[in-house]
This record gives sequence, structure tokens and C-alpha cells, in this order.
Amino acid sequence: MRLISSVKSFRDLTLCALRRPLIRTLREIRAINVPYQQHFRSLTSQIQEPIDMATKEGKSNKLSFQLKTPKGTRDWIGVDMIIRESIFSAITEVFKRHGGTQLDTPVFELKEILAGKYGEDSRLIYDLADQGGEDSALRYDLTVPLARWLAMNTSVQHIKRFQIAKVYRRDQPAVAKGRMREFYQCDFDIAGSYDPMIPDAEVLRIVVEVFEALNMRDYITIKLNHRKILDGLFGACGVPGDKIRSISSAVDKLDKLPWEQVKLEMEEKGLAPEVADKVGQYVKLSGGRDILDTIRSDDLLSTNENVMKGVEDMELLFKYLEAFDVLDKISFDLSLARGLDYYTGLIYEVVTPLSSAEGFAQSQKKSKSKSNGEDQNIGVGSIAAGGRYDDLVNMFAKKRQIPCVGISFGVDRIFTIMKQRLENEAKEGNASMRASEVDVFVMAFGGKGFNGLLLERMSVANQLWKAGIKAEFAQTVKPKLPQQFKLAEAGGIPLAVILGEDELAAGKVKLKELGLPEGHPEKDGTLISREDLVEEIKKKLNKISLPIR
Amino acid sequence: MRLISSVKSFRDLTLCALRRPLIRTLREIRAINVPYQQHFRSLTSQIQEPIDMATKEGKSNKLSFQLKTPKGTRDWIGVDMIIRESIFSAITEVFKRHGGTQLDTPVFELKEILAGKYGEDSRLIYDLADQGGEDSALRYDLTVPLARWLAMNTSVQHIKRFQIAKVYRRDQPAVAKGRMREFYQCDFDIAGSYDPMIPDAEVLRIVVEVFEALNMRDYITIKLNHRKILDGLFGACGVPGDKIRSISSAVDKLDKLPWEQVKLEMEEKGLAPEVADKVGQYVKLSGGRDILDTIRSDDLLSTNENVMKGVEDMELLFKYLEAFDVLDKISFDLSLARGLDYYTGLIYEVVTPLSSAEGFAQSQKKSKSKSNGEDQNIGVGSIAAGGRYDDLVNMFAKKRQIPCVGISFGVDRIFTIMKQRLENEAKEGNASMRASEVDVFVMAFGGKGFNGLLLERMSVANQLWKAGIKAEFAQTVKPKLPQQFKLAEAGGIPLAVILGEDELAAGKVKLKELGLPEGHPEKDGTLISREDLVEEIKKKLNKISLPIR
Repeated sequence: MRLISSVKSFRDLTLCALRRPLIRTLREIRAINVPYQQHFRSLTSQIQEPIDMATKEGKSNKLSFQLKTPKGTRDWIGVDMIIRESIFSAITEVFKRHGGTQLDTPVFELKEILAGKYGEDSRLIYDLADQGGEDSALRYDLTVPLARWLAMNTSVQHIKRFQIAKVYRRDQPAVAKGRMREFYQCDFDIAGSYDPMIPDAEVLRIVVEVFEALNMRDYITIKLNHRKILDGLFGACGVPGDKIRSISSAVDKLDKLPWEQVKLEMEEKGLAPEVADKVGQYVKLSGGRDILDTIRSDDLLSTNENVMKGVEDMELLFKYLEAFDVLDKISFDLSLARGLDYYTGLIYEVVTPLSSAEGFAQSQKKSKSKSNGEDQNIGVGSIAAGGRYDDLVNMFAKKRQIPCVGISFGVDRIFTIMKQRLENEAKEGNASMRASEVDVFVMAFGGKGFNGLLLERMSVANQLWKAGIKAEFAQTVKPKLPQQFKLAEAGGIPLAVILGEDELAAGKVKLKELGLPEGHPEKDGTLISREDLVEEIKKKLNKISLPIR
Repeated sequence: MRLISSVKSFRDLTLCALRRPLIRTLREIRAINVPYQQHFRSLTSQIQEPIDMATKEGKSNKLSFQLKTPKGTRDWIGVDMIIRESIFSAITEVFKRHGGTQLDTPVFELKEILAGKYGEDSRLIYDLADQGGEDSALRYDLTVPLARWLAMNTSVQHIKRFQIAKVYRRDQPAVAKGRMREFYQCDFDIAGSYDPMIPDAEVLRIVVEVFEALNMRDYITIKLNHRKILDGLFGACGVPGDKIRSISSAVDKLDKLPWEQVKLEMEEKGLAPEVADKVGQYVKLSGGRDILDTIRSDDLLSTNENVMKGVEDMELLFKYLEAFDVLDKISFDLSLARGLDYYTGLIYEVVTPLSSAEGFAQSQKKSKSKSNGEDQNIGVGSIAAGGRYDDLVNMFAKKRQIPCVGISFGVDRIFTIMKQRLENEAKEGNASMRASEVDVFVMAFGGKGFNGLLLERMSVANQLWKAGIKAEFAQTVKPKLPQQFKLAEAGGIPLAVILGEDELAAGKVKLKELGLPEGHPEKDGTLISREDLVEEIKKKLNKISLPIR
């Protein structure tokens, strides 16, 4: 493996970073079903265009609607599916390493559960039609369902729970960037009363471990802020209390918009220009632990009680993050605000160079993917985000006060980045893939009057399935031998069991390793007795699989 | 392992059947997070009752709604979640053994896609509210989305696809029986033109392999029928063409209702009593391959073209099922009709003794579970079902004719059965479980002025995480030693790393195996240097894990 220190460009870094997951991914890419490899390649290199049936099939067509998935949703299959599954499994492994327990909640919740939790974004919630039952809506995230669960299950005082599931937002989709209306979130949350900032630090440790497992550690930055510092700062600068959340959401846009535009939004929201400027002077600060010294030596902030409570938390946090060896990934960023209403303490967001519009556009030049006409002013956005929300459970159950802190990974955005890298890697020609996970193709041949030996092929395949061996056969009564070899080769299936009438009568079959070079002693395969077949196949698979897997 | 032949009662069978998956399940049950084992036990032995906040918390409460999940939905966690995950993984393994490729489709589809596919049950479809976009509805099954995908992706001619995902039906829920409004289906379908009945037979082979993997092979029966035989039979008996589907759905109820009631429904649907009786005489037939002889020797049926086409298919099928060694599980049942509109050939349904109301009631007596006031006249129902649907893709794309055959496993119902067996098993006291998947608890102790060594505990935990070891520590600054032991024991965590100031200063920590008997030479643990810690832990885990796992 190339050393990080010898890497010269972002593209090099990309390739280098992908090496480890790629090995796993490549192994799994062999899982694609036999003759569809070509298809999957084209399928996954572009999002499927809707088919307007009326145009394509003439007036006689019964269909009067477009054949497509709903706006902002897509199908997943082939290479895309395999990459995504490998992301899930890497994340799950880290979650379990930290003692996580899996929760699954319904895809829709009662509308009252979701109401008043998402600030300005509540308009993006998908409602279910009233069909004479309860008013429900598709879940918007996995955090509110967790809080609802904690409120209901009164015997639970502490839990580390994780959930991997789809969430729904009626936002403007940007498909090429992985911003969809239906998308996966992978959440890990620590609920319960613990000493300050210890669980918060563990969550950030988990963030780093997940991106390490995806070999993306070198490209991420965790932007941190504290709601108490932010709100205190707003108060100290003279932002009226009832405007704090709306000004906060304007400040949050500083990573995408220039200060002038953010200031304009603040003024439109009713803030005096001089107050906005005062706020601006602080929220432009970013750095590491040194920001705490800056705040402490600032006359205005150091006398604000709220700010100083936040500073105390941050002191502890930096100490713990040092013990967890993740300080190098942290950027303390006073402009980070996060849109959601329910955060009460530490907040954070994980970004990569592709998160910004410029970064994404630049990488696009290197890759085939196109963002056909989508908004060029946004990037992939943050790829993970979260924070502390100590009062959310309490909103559902007055007598339950369960402090929580958590993180949500945006898998579809992570997928977009990993896929782009995989495409670059493939261009280098490193991708010698097998198209199928199947290990054995059962075939038959014979001379004149050959009946296809279908029942015999079935029975041998069955023998292999019973032994747990992945096997297929041509699903026709009388397939020709070249046709059967073609099917096996198309799938990159390494072994063939070949049946002939005479051999079968003697209780034997031929086992042949496919793709051996001319002149190899076993090029024509070897005759073995049927009862030894499973064992012989397992031996061969152990041997030939090693170099590829 | 007990032999099947020595089993005397259904209860014995149950225990025996569960043994194999149980071993895997038990291993995974150890994955439950530390102090919540007790909680999970109670949580999963009953479905959560809704909490009426107004009653519970007095008038001052802001909540005016019940804190619950929507009707017919539930949360999954703990033991339930682990059993369900083990079912998924067994099924996935079988699907991949047969060359399956995974597809994921959106949870909602355009309403037009679902329209006209589900006969009388279309009223059970959940619509999304019109929010100024497209009209969409939650998917009702995974078959129609597959057909939509095949119609859109015109380059695909053949595929074995599988999908494991939730589907939605606004039906009357029966929670204790696993009949929910939100539930999982696991589908495997073979699409493409092959020689007749070969893929159909492979699908039935897959059914048997799946229940073998779940150690339920002995309790299932696959009921088979053929739409062409059924429709031909209706025609031959004098059922008018436009009534065939509705009469068919009446006949389908013969497994739940007595003939008289089914006949009454037929008459209400406009069938003459003598025609109904004629139909009744045939649909009561069930058996094996012999039914084909009965049909062939029947003057009325043997002259019906449709019936004889179906008989020809069934002849082939029985031949193939014999080669696949699954004939013993088949019941050819002329009353099986399946409600869905889209089937065109072979249809099938997998039932167990618990599928019927009597079977379920009987098993309930043996188990703790209660079906609180739910309809006692239904059982768990079929636990897998499917058939051939050659025209469904064509409904979406006139020029695409892709014959399909598939199976859908009802995981929630399978779960209900497995869980009941697990409870019986637990009663026998065989269930020695570990409550957590975590392997190491990092703790600290000290004398007067002990500061808790939090940073040191963090740093050691971090060392273990980096090596991929599952580890936790008490998330408080100064935990007492007994408290830390209690946390470790509650989780059944096998190893403790104990930090002391003097030992740390000498670069050493204590590694202690928990739960060793008095007098054991390593009862007090052993001092080892920090750089050897990971290696020593891995050695110990290899040793102590073997007998349990």
C-alpha cells in the first residue's frame, strides 16, 4: 500500500484512500449476477432516465403516465448496491464495537410526534393521506423516533442505540450529489445521564473510527460548536431572544454563502445592521482549542454566563478528544449552527473537500459522472452531523428527562464520494472483477440423441446446494455445450461440473477449472466420483479463491 | 443434537427444530447492550401498550395525543431484533447460493404503478397526501416494484433478483400473530424466458432450503395449484368468465371457512347453487402427483384445453421437484387460488400447523404470549407465498414480455413462530445468554485521593477500539470499583482491564477474566505491560469464547 506521505495530489489521495475498502468491495463486486454485468455498469454509471411511454411506444399504449420512480427516489442494484452494503457493514461494525444495540422503528409516525421538531424544515415532511385512521407522516430523521421510543419505554434509563434506515424529505433533489428525497441515515446515540462531555467525546471518536473504516479519515474535518456559546454570543451582541433560532439558521449558511448575503438575510429577519456586524465578527472565528482562549480574553463574551458554560464544556471535551486521539480532525467553528430546533449543547458536522460546491465541481472534472443541470452552487454537503439534545425526550413525556447525544451518517452522500473514487480506480485498470458470486456451473454434453441431462444437472446442482455451495445451471432442457461455457464465463464462475452419459453411468463426473492456460495438466478437467464431488470442489475453491479474494 | 426420529410431541419437535438456529441466535443474543437485558426481556415479551399521557401525567401535560406508534406498527429491539436479523441472514445466504442479486426500490411508488394490480385488496393501499407533487402510495408488495423496474430497464432480459424490505397494508392488525400493517417481505424472483417449469421448480427448492436453514423443514407444507387448471375448471363447471376472479377469491377461503360458507359467498357473488356444487366437488381435491391422474380420468376436466395445459406443466414440475428432492413437502391443492390478479400459472403457499386458527390457539396454551382480544378465528396464516406472473411487466411496457416466477417470505410471521419456540426453549433453562457483545470493560481503582483515572481509561479503551476490540468503560469521572464490576457483570462482559496509578506508572495494567471460581490461579488477574495488552486480550478471547460461541 502506498504511503500517505508519498501522495502528491488529491486524486492520488483518493486512490490511496480507497485501496482498503476497495479490496473488500471488489471481492463483493464479484457477487453480481451472471450475464448482467454489462448492464449494471451502464445502469450505475447514470441514474435511470424516466421513460415517457407515450413517446416511446406510440399512441396505442395504455400507459398514460411516466414509467419512473417518484421524484428524488431511485432504485439500487448491482455495483451501487454492493458499495452501499459495504458502507453499512463497516459502520455497523464500529457501532457494535462501542456497545451499540440496534433499534428499528416504523417508517411513519403519528403527525403529532414530528410536529414542532424541525424548525423551518417542517414543511419538508411527507404526510400520509387521511384514509379514515390516524394522521401519520413519513419519518424525517431517526432522532425523533428514538426520543419517542425513550419516552414510551419508561424502564430504560441508559442506552447506546443504533439505527440504519431510510428517512424522507420533500427537498429539491440533486441526484448526482447524493441529495435525495428518500435516503439512508445511520445513527448512533448515547442516551442517559453521564458525567459531562464523556459520551459526547465517545460519539466523536466513533465518527473518526467510521471514516477510518471507510479509509476516508484523511479527508474529513469535524466542525464543532456549542449551542450555549452560540446563543450566549447572540445575546451578548444584542440579538433579541425570539430571533435567536432564525438568526442562527442564517449564520449556519456561512459555509455556502458570502458574509454579505448572510448579513442581508439577518437584516431581512429584522436584525439591526450593527448587531449583525457584531455577530459577524465572532462567528467568523474558527480554529482549535485556541478559540477558547480568544473567547476568554474577550470582554463581551467572557462575562456572558451562557457562553462561559459552553466554554467549560468545551474545555472538558478537548481534554477527552486528546485521550481519544482525534484532536487532529477537529475544527472549532463559531459559525456552525445546525438548523434543527432540538439541540441544546455540543453540535457538529463532518465535511470533506467534496462538501463544498467548488470541491465537488473540481472532482467532477476527473470523473465521468454528470450533474445534468442541477444546481451548481451546492456540493455534497455534510456527510455526518449531530449534537446533544437533552430536552427532546421531555417534550414527549413530562416526567422523563433523558439527556442524549448522537451522530447521523449520510450514507448516500458517503456513497457518492466512494463511488467517484471507485470510478477513478477502475479507470486505472485495477478492477479485474468477477461478475457473479456463484462458484460452480453444472453443465452437460453428449453426442447424437443427447437429451440434455436436465434431471441429472438438477440433481447435481441440488447436491451442491445441500452442501452450501453456490451453483447454477442453464435453465433449458437441451442447452448446447458452448452456450453453457459462455454463461459460466460471463459470470466469471471459476468451476464447471460437466456431466456425460457414460461417465454418469459409471458414477463419475468431470470437474474442470475454467480459464486455465493451454497446456495446463488439468486443462481438460479431471474425472471424479460423484460422492467425492463436494469435497473436491471445496478443496479447489479454497485454492483458487485465495489469490482473487 | 436430538434426532428427529426420537421426537414424540409437537413441543419436542419445536425444541429440536430450533436447536440449530438457536445456537446462532444465542450467540447473537449476547449482543444486547449491557444493563438493559432485563428491560428487553419484558419489552419483547409483550407489545408496548400505548401510553395515554393525559391520564398518566395530569392536566398540566402539553401532550394531547397518545404516545404510541401508528396502528399496526411496532418498534423492534433487543431479542426480537436479533431473532429477526438471524432470519434475514439465513434467507440471504440461500438467495445468494442460487445466484440472487439484491435490488432496493423506494418505499413509495407512483399511484398509477400500483393501480389495478391487487384486486379486492387495493383498498388496503396507503396513499401519500397530495402535497403539490406526484400522487404516490406506499408499496403493497415487492413484486409490482420489480415488474416496474424490469419494464424500465430495457437491457435486462434475465435476472434472479432478491429484495428484503418493508411493505404496507391498511388491514386489521393481529399483533400476536405477526399480522401487522408494516411488515417485512423477503422476495426471490426469477425473471426471463426459460424452458417451462425449470425456474418454478428452483423457486420451490429455495423455499425448502430456506426453511431448512431455519430448522423448520419438518413443519412446513407447500400447497400448490395452477391458475390454468383452476380457471379451466371454473369454465368447465359453468362459471361465467367475468366472475372467475371473484369466485376464485371465494374458493381461496376454503382453508379458513367451511364449504357451506364459501358456497354462500359464491351464491352472493351471483353463482347458481348447482354450479357452485360442481366447483366444490373439484376444489376439495388435494394430494400429490395422483391428482393429475384424477384430473386426466375426469370426463369434464380432461376435455378442457386450459386444464390440460396446466396438467402438462404440473407433470414437468413434479419431475423436477423429484430431482430437487422436495416432493415430500408438496401438497397439490385444487382449492388454492391466491387473491392477487397478476398470477398466470403455478401458485403456491407455505403453511405450518400454526397457520390455522386451531393450531395457533393450541400452541398459545404452551406459551406465555397472549393475543389480547384479537380475532381468535385466524391463525398466523401462510408464511410464504408466490407464483408465476408472466404478464405483469407487460402491463407497464407493451413491448416487454418478461415471464417471472417468485416467492415472498413473510418474515414477521416466521418470527412469531420462532419466538414462541425460543420461549419454550428458555423455559427449559437452556438459555445461558450473555447480555452484551462487548468483550472488555476498562476500569480503574485507587486509594485516598483517587481521581478516577478517566483520561487513562479513555486512552486504554481507545487502544482497544483501534485494534477492533469491543470495549466500554464507566462514563463517569470517579466511578467506584464495585460499581464498575457491576456494570461489567450485568453485560456478561468476560474480561476486565483494571488500571491503578502505581501499575500505570510502571507501564502495566491488570487483565482479569471475570467469573472465575474461587481458588483459580488467575482469579485476581495478571499484570501485563500495556504494549502486550491487545495481544493478551485476543488470546484470552480466543480461549474463553470457544465453549460459548
